[in-house]
Order: sequence, then structure tokens, then C-alpha cells
Amino acid sequence: MCQLLGMNCNTPTDIVFSFTGFAHRSQEHADGFGIAFFEGAGVRLFVDHQAALHSPVAELVRRYPIKSTNVIAHIRKATQGRVALENCHPFVRELWGRYWVFAHNGDLKGFSPRLHAAFRPVGDTDSELAFCWLMQELAKNHASVPTPEQLTETLRELVPVVSKHGTFNFMLSNGHALWAHCSTRLHYLVRQHPFSTARLQDEDMTVNFAEVTTPQDRVAVIVTEPLTANETWVPFAPGEIKAFLDGQLLAT
Amino acid sequence: MCQLLGMNCNTPTDIVFSFTGFAHRSQEHADGFGIAFFEGAGVRLFVDHQAALHSPVAELVRRYPIKSTNVIAHIRKATQGRVALENCHPFVRELWGRYWVFAHNGDLKGFSPRLHAAFRPVGDTDSELAFCWLMQELAKNHASVPTPEQLTETLRELVPVVSKHGTFNFMLSNGHALWAHCSTRLHYLVRQHPFSTARLQDEDMTVNFAEVTTPQDRVAVIVTEPLTANETWVPFAPGEIKAFLDGQLLAT
Repeated sequence: MCQLLGMNCNTPTDIVFSFTGFAHRSQEHADGFGIAFFEGAGVRLFVDHQAALHSPVAELVRRYPIKSTNVIAHIRKATQGRVALENCHPFVRELWGRYWVFAHNGDLKGFSPRLHAAFRPVGDTDSELAFCWLMQELAKNHASVPTPEQLTETLRELVPVVSKHGTFNFMLSNGHALWAHCSTRLHYLVRQHPFSTARLQDEDMTVNFAEVTTPQDRVAVIVTEPLTANETWVPFAPGEIKAFLDGQLLAT
Repeated sequence: MCQLLGMNCNTPTDIVFSFTGFAHRSQEHADGFGIAFFEGAGVRLFVDHQAALHSPVAELVRRYPIKSTNVIAHIRKATQGRVALENCHPFVRELWGRYWVFAHNGDLKGFSPRLHAAFRPVGDTDSELAFCWLMQELAKNHASVPTPEQLTETLRELVPVVSKHGTFNFMLSNGHALWAHCSTRLHYLVRQHPFSTARLQDEDMTVNFAEVTTPQDRVAVIVTEPLTANETWVPFAPGEIKAFLDGQLLAT
């Protein structure tokens, strides 16, 4: 299975700490990785079919602290689709003059929707197919960018159509809000004032967030398996869709 | 003005040599750079709003020889649109299940087409607007991916609609063929057997291509201003659209 990592903040924040812990897991997830950073309306997408632990592209991500308010990362263990660049998550499409970034963990069986609109998969994964279908249906449901609350409502109608075909943990962001759906495993936490020290579970690395933040900063981190040993991660319930905006859970 | 660099080959080839010479020019083109590499159907896109000469992303591109059959690069001197990530070329959209990459050098005045279909600009450049309009019109003209010859014909009909609004030097690729249109300045050459040594015009760097190629290799390089001093670059005529496939000029 693949693993997912997402971050949504109220202040541009670098993801070096979390990505370091996350990339460490790529020993067992060696079929590629990808990470998308929103910067304003723009997206910086790094994908590689090498494991995050060995990829020079991942090395750049670890060393070059790109500050972003919305990040989605993925490490891949291929289940469907060849190991090829076009099958690396996250995937990006444009809708309503915004970029949409999507990554999936899971496996869908027998999902073959009709794609009659403007979104078609380039690679051969179930994940990109599901993303294209979601984009098509979102485009049908709204004439322009809906509010995060409205989009959450639409996703609650659409997602079961896909998730009945298998495991459909995913993250989606338009650079403003970030949505996460849990089929099986997903956790989140919100870091905010007063900040403390976090210690990575997989590597001997700690960060005292109090030293690198201001009291106004707020960061939501969403991930398949908790990244730190000394913080309280909240598990998603199966079937839950949560939306994050400005570093906090959106009440819907 | 911005500068453009394109490469189309019959064998995956790295662009380190040409990109090094090209990036050197970013002293005068300091408002960002971008480069897109096709690998199979997938695209690796690196963009940065720092100049290519100083960007850690460009440093990765210079050091990590990514092999590709189709590459488009761009260094930016902002004329329209803020210096922001979403305004960095190349731009990418999906159509007919393929990615399309586009970069533009020039300045369009009073071009405000109706966009009624599925392609809308994310940033605020004339270039991305022109790309979205081209994609919209290509989608109207063909039901699925046309042959390179057919697409060249369609571009010959569409491009004058845009180019009458100003300077519209551009490159477009779908990972198979590469199209280049010249309003004002564009040059190309084809490197093939017997290969010789090339010397960069802007830096003290030479490559003996005979040592790094096989006799079957063929590489077309298209660029705003010739990159090397000791090779014969062919200038485009204003208004010309040329298509390149498997490292050679497509006769159309």
C-alpha cells in the first residue's frame, strides 16, 4: 500500500521535518514518490519513479525548504499501473482556473466510469481514473469554484460511488483548502500555540516548533500513519471526509 | 523578452549541455525559469521564480541528467503578469489523455478570446491565456490525438488569430512531437551522425557528442538565440511553424 502525507496551514510553512520522516518509509514503498506544493495559485510538483530515500529529487525537497500553505505527498507501492512517471502521484488538473492536486492510497476494483468530459487519465492507474471522474463530476455540480463547505458536501455525495469499489484513502487540494477521505487508515493533528517539541517516529530527529513559529501559526498535518511518537494523532473513522482550511479542521 | 529552448530526439537524451548555456542567459532574464521533461507519457516540470542562474531547482537540473525525448525550457523576463509561480512557463494541460506543454516568448496586446470550454488560465499572463485558447480550439478540431501532420495543419489555421496581437514565438509538445512557431527570432539545428564537438557561446564548455552518442541518435535543438559558436543554426522565417519528430524536421 502507498502512504499519504498532507499539510494545510495558515502561514506558508516548510514540510522538511514531516517529509523526512515520511520519506524514511519509502524503503517499503520503493515504486516512486511525489510531492506537490502550492505557492499562491501556482503548484510545484516533484515526482520520481525512484524511492524517496534515494531520489535526487527527494533530496532537493529535504534540503530546500519550500514554504507552502498546502502540500500533498505520496510514496508509492505499485498495485495497479506500471512503475512509470505518468503513474506517480500526486496528479494535477486545472478546473475553474485553479489547479487541483490529488493523491490516493488504496486499490479500486471494477471502477470504470464513463468519462465524457474534459478529464482523461494519462497513465494507467485506478487512482488517476478516479481523480478524473471526481473532477468531471465536480465540474458538473458547480459553475465556478465553490466554497470549501459546498465542495465538502459534493464530495460526500460523489466519494461513495468510488469507495464502494475498494480502498479509497485520498487527499485533494486546490491550494486553498485540503480535503482528506479515509477508507481504512488516516490520522491528523493540528499544531498551534503553545508549540512544543516533536520527535520523529522513524528517525532520530526532533524539532522544537516553538523556535520556528509565531503564536499565530497553525498547521494541520494529515498522514496515513502517525509521524511522531510524542504527539496525539487523531484517527479518521472509515468513510469520513474532513476539510482543512487555514490549518484547522473545518466544521461541516 | 524571454528566451525559449526546446529539444526533440529519437533517443532519450539529457539536456545538461544546452541548459547550462541557456541558464547562463538568465542574468538578463531574472524573473523565473521553467523546464518540462517528457518521460514516456509523464511530465517532470520544474519551475521557479528565481533566476535559473541562482535557483536550487535549476542546479538540480544541471546536475541530474534527466533523459528525455521532448524538453521545453523557458527563462522569463516579465512583461505581463506578476513574478509568481503560477506565471512561470512552461504551462501544462491534459487533452485526449496526454499532457501538453507550452512556453511562449513575446507579448500579446488586446488578445481576449472567449474561453467557454475546459481550459482556463490560473495565472495572469497573456501566454497562459493563449495556450488555453489553443487547447480549446485544438479540442474542437480533433476528436482524439491527431497525427503530427494534422496538428501542424490545425496550428497553421489557429496561430495567426493569436499572432496578429503581437509577438508569439512559442513551443508546444505532447511528448511525441514538438512544434515551434516563430514571430521574430528562433533557430534550430539537428545533431546527427557523424557527431562533432560543440562549444557553448556563453560559457567555456565543450562536449564531444561523438563520445556520448550512438550513430543512430538524432537530436533537434530549437532556441531563441544560437547556443553554440561552431555549429550552423538555421533561422526560422517570421510566421513559420515547424514540427519536429524523432529528432528531425517533419516535412509538411
